Amino acid sequence: MTEDQMTQILLELTARVDALEDRAAIVALMTTYGPAIDAGDADAVARVWTEDGEYDVDTGVMRGHEEIRAMVRGPMHQGFVRGGCAHILEPGDVVIDGDTAVATCKSLLVTADGPGGPFTVARATANRWELVRTGEGWRCRRRVGRLLDGRPEARALLAGEDVDASH
Amino acid sequence: MTEDQMTQILLELTARVDALEDRAAIVALMTTYGPAIDAGDADAVARVWTEDGEYDVDTGVMRGHEEIRAMVRGPMHQGFVRGGCAHILEPGDVVIDGDTAVATCKSLLVTADGPGGPFTVARATANRWELVRTGEGWRCRRRVGRLLDGRPEARALLAGEDVDASH
Amino acid sequence: MTEDQMTQILLELTARVDALEDRAAIVALMTTYGPAIDAGDADAVARVWTEDGEYDVDTGVMRGHEEIRAMVRGPMHQGFVRGGCAHILEPGDVVIDGDTAVATCKSLLVTADGPGGPFTVARATANRWELVRTGEGWRCRRRVGRLLDGRPEARALLAGEDVDASH
Repeated sequence: MTEDQMTQILLELTARVDALEDRAAIVALMTTYGPAIDAGDADAVARVWTEDGEYDVDTGVMRGHEEIRAMVRGPMHQGFVRGGCAHILEPGDVVIDGDTAVATCKSLLVTADGPGGPFTVARATANRWELVRTGEGWRCRRRVGRLLDGRPEARALLAGEDVDASH
Repeated sequence: MTEDQMTQILLELTARVDALEDRAAIVALMTTYGPAIDAGDADAVARVWTEDGEYDVDTGVMRGHEEIRAMVRGPMHQGFVRGGCAHILEPGDVVIDGDTAVATCKSLLVTADGPGGPFTVARATANRWELVRTGEGWRCRRRVGRLLDGRPEARALLAGEDVDASH
Repeated sequence: MTEDQMTQILLELTARVDALEDRAAIVALMTTYGPAIDAGDADAVARVWTEDGEYDVDTGVMRGHEEIRAMVRGPMHQGFVRGGCAHILEPGDVVIDGDTAVATCKSLLVTADGPGGPFTVARATANRWELVRTGEGWRCRRRVGRLLDGRPEARALLAGEDVDASH
């Protein structure tokens, strides 16, 4: 192998490893959400988003870390946590485009019927995560969730369309 | 490091990155299924399979893109989509062997009881995905699903055995 | 590019590929659990753990392969398998530190109400996997599971705290 060939392969390998690391980092970011939300850890939940990130759910829109933290600390979410809940997130369909990415997936909110279970699937939600590379790694700048109870908006999210009811 | 050593490491690294990319590509292919099926997007669902790919479920066997599209567009699936449904796929156990691979996992079909939920777990299914590397990337050439309601066939699938009831 | 530069990049790339392979290997180990447990394959379940590995669930603590195999072969688990069950594992939040790692995630135990379904979510469980690199690859040396029915221990697990009720 000549030196030029080696240099070329090194550059190509570096780009391929960059891409694999981006994908792994996005998966890692998304998997920090589940433990944080079910532990009721407001700071850890907020850190998934950029400082001005938005979480747009059919039950309300939160803008920025402070509003996201307030949701986690609020009576509705703390009621779920105290009674027992699991936000289950399936692996996302991650499409990366340079310094931004979109991940599409579904989530379940499972709540305990009482001590010892069994459990009820309270929500099944379509999710669209809009991600951005920041100086501190990948973060979510906007996440949209819509209940999969037949409403067309939820299907549109899964089809890759944006849903801007919040704007 | 001598030039020979560098060449050797480059070749090894290239093989390792190839393997990581294969794994990532298979996960990426499998994660495109969920949004597509719950959006009711027949073309996107069919693209998960090779042109002559097979989807063998206990409720019927579909062969080729046209039959898979027809299932998505059919009254049963469209009824699920209109009423609200989530096909949840857990991460697959992916075993790659050159240009083919097998992924084993389970899936849930969760359906809305009505507007606003809650939801019922209508199906829990054992899945075997037989994958193949094509000129356009990894595709599914055969997926077999069997309901995990105690039938031995479903357990056999999870144990890595093939189930050829469809042949 | 000089030879020194190339050597430097090769060393860096090797470390990055090592890290990606560790992450992939841990995910692969965790995904072998699901098919094994629902197939009722005691040996395949035990292989997820080191020979002296521990599985600490709120329903009991198993120490070593023999006790784990005995649980899989026992009447309670075989009852689940015969009636139809799916242990669904969401993607784990994996944090690697050299030769050890911790993965945090939730799991669902879904059981069939009868032939053809539907299914009940019998358990939603907080999981902490303590992993170690062995001569045969990554293995679990301790897994702790606690029911997410409101008990503080389950939330502590998700918050990254250890739960040593078993000791």
